[in-house]
Amino acid sequence: MKELVDRIRQEGVNLGTEILKIDSLLNHQIDPQLMMNMGKEFASVLPKADRILTAEVSGIGPALMTGLAMKVPVVFARKKQPVTMKTPVYKETSTSRTKGGSVDLIVSSEYLHRGEKVLIIDDFLASGETMKAMIRLVESAEATVVGCGVVVEKSFQGGRAALATDYPSLPIHSLALITSMEGNKIELA
Amino acid sequence: MKELVDRIRQEGVNLGTEILKIDSLLNHQIDPQLMMNMGKEFASVLPKADRILTAEVSGIGPALMTGLAMKVPVVFARKKQPVTMKTPVYKETSTSRTKGGSVDLIVSSEYLHRGEKVLIIDDFLASGETMKAMIRLVESAEATVVGCGVVVEKSFQGGRAALATDYPSLPIHSLALITSMEGNKIELA
Repeated sequence: MKELVDRIRQEGVNLGTEILKIDSLLNHQIDPQLMMNMGKEFASVLPKADRILTAEVSGIGPALMTGLAMKVPVVFARKKQPVTMKTPVYKETSTSRTKGGSVDLIVSSEYLHRGEKVLIIDDFLASGETMKAMIRLVESAEATVVGCGVVVEKSFQGGRAALATDYPSLPIHSLALITSMEGNKIELA
Repeated sequence: MKELVDRIRQEGVNLGTEILKIDSLLNHQIDPQLMMNMGKEFASVLPKADRILTAEVSGIGPALMTGLAMKVPVVFARKKQPVTMKTPVYKETSTSRTKGGSVDLIVSSEYLHRGEKVLIIDDFLASGETMKAMIRLVESAEATVVGCGVVVEKSFQGGRAALATDYPSLPIHSLALITSMEGNKIELA
């Protein structure tokens, strides 16, 4: 998606240890029109679903706009179980380099239903661990993941290959593809 | 806003201790079209701004849609400082009953600028403590808060009155007004 790739070229910062800072447009400040264009792109490319699943916090913007374009509800997995969330819940644990250590992902069974088609949207695809945890959440509910959309894929961290091993027929669409972050550079495909 | 009030009547649950569960439409699952309508309402009623400030997590949906309608960027205050956020930051502490204890709100100085007009959007107005902390964040940046929009105001918890004492001319617009949560009831104005 040229608009996003251009913005990453202009505003992205390589913080070292393979961490990309795009706080100006996605992870701290959000550009609503860019989010809307991203949501339309996901909705046009990825399979139709009954529901969209994402993870708090930075997946919410792109997922919400995809849900708007697809006219389906969006559920965001929580990292901690809030007082409003009563059992039973689905819970999976992932590892995140940017967040440091392990991260829980929790979804109430009220908002993932057996037999549904679920589209997963997230901000980054790196090792694929978070995406796999979200897929397991959907499987726990006996629902089906019909596709994954990610805003930024870091291909050199192997997430797509790891997902392809476990889920060979799963469609994965990324809006920007980073092929290398060696030195201070950000190489985009 | 009738659409929201109707949804709260249908889906809202009084969990006791004055906590309202509306996880089906705002705090866990999000209805994108409802969010869009809320954003349009805020944009039509509240003063124009250069930027919108909200707090993660549940403020993001309404703030993003308001930003889309107003064509301005949205910044969400973080509760923990992520690795991508370098100093200097603005930081304030609030108390939250639903989240338990004190909550930090952190915004990078990159995304709040001196002299700007800032509109604050949040999901709930209860005691007003979170809103006051966000106002202090804006003031720390020497920017001006031009208005506050909240999805659900719980008038019996006194937030509007507390804000009016400190900021008598600040416009506050709520989309749904809950006047009582005694027993198991949810009384809406």
